[in-house]
Amino acid sequence: MASTTTTEPEIKSSSVPIPLAALDYSKIDVILRFLFFGASVSALASIVSSYQTEFVLFQGVPVLQPAKFKYSPALIYFVSAFTVSGFYGLLTTIISISLIQKPQYKLKFLLHLLFWDALILGIVASATGAAGSIAYVGLKGNSHVGWIKICNVYDKFCRHLAGSIAVALFGSIVNVLLIWLSAYTLHTHVPK
Amino acid sequence: MASTTTTEPEIKSSSVPIPLAALDYSKIDVILRFLFFGASVSALASIVSSYQTEFVLFQGVPVLQPAKFKYSPALIYFVSAFTVSGFYGLLTTIISISLIQKPQYKLKFLLHLLFWDALILGIVASATGAAGSIAYVGLKGNSHVGWIKICNVYDKFCRHLAGSIAVALFGSIVNVLLIWLSAYTLHTHVPK
Repeated sequence: MASTTTTEPEIKSSSVPIPLAALDYSKIDVILRFLFFGASVSALASIVSSYQTEFVLFQGVPVLQPAKFKYSPALIYFVSAFTVSGFYGLLTTIISISLIQKPQYKLKFLLHLLFWDALILGIVASATGAAGSIAYVGLKGNSHVGWIKICNVYDKFCRHLAGSIAVALFGSIVNVLLIWLSAYTLHTHVPK
Repeated sequence: MASTTTTEPEIKSSSVPIPLAALDYSKIDVILRFLFFGASVSALASIVSSYQTEFVLFQGVPVLQPAKFKYSPALIYFVSAFTVSGFYGLLTTIISISLIQKPQYKLKFLLHLLFWDALILGIVASATGAAGSIAYVGLKGNSHVGWIKICNVYDKFCRHLAGSIAVALFGSIVNVLLIWLSAYTLHTHVPK
């Protein structure tokens, strides 16, 4: 018994020279990146299609007034950020798929992907926060400064906005998971 | 001259067998974490001290109306997020300093710090975005939905808010740099 336990580790270490365990996470990486791409595109599609026109009382006279995301700088930033993250998601999904086929370049790309992931997380999270706070004022209003709520009039616009922000939040969480996965994969290659 | 330049690298490589290069970044890590802590505390101090009371016309009658961050859910989120990040900044600065003295635990802690850094980045960036978009409406108003600007009345409140958001943005950038540094340090330990 004692002799088998002492020889086994030696055989293992000689047959597997470089840590290969980290390569198992490649497929999860592809799935997460595709999810991130999907979330970005969904968030964009939902907010871009949020256009709604309603009659609004203006000095007692009903006037046809549209609601679109272009009226709010915060929502323009949201659309810009998720356009960038959508392209980034698509590009990195392709890169991640090609890294499965060529694992020798994996570690080099992993660091670069982690760098970009952190930057994109900052952009995407801030855009989600910006759109979320504007949407909340639209939903509830703010009586202290006299900002009226608009979601009682523009119901479709607000529903699209809420859907977009929910998907954007999901995308941000996926982005955090991507950073965790890349960091963990790098860590498993570090000699103990 | 030629003999000294050829012998020097040999002496270095023999005296330093295992990658020690990454340990040079420990001090930068401490400095960045302290900067992040400082930015969080400054952002908090600026927004908490933003209280201002002004006379506002309410149905033709001037009424004393205060402006405070508690009136906006987005700004309450901002204060909560930066309270958390302030404590996190302080804690991780202490951890980072103690890791200089005990470098054998460095790699283990580095992964955990990177995990938390990514999470905190998501929270801090979204809070900065949320406060930024509310402050922009306060500064410029939004004529499409009838949200009036308030910064022409509450000048001190808006100045404090702007300062707070600027420092918060700086803190978010420092947080991205922290993730980059941790990832790079992990990467330098990976066998090529």
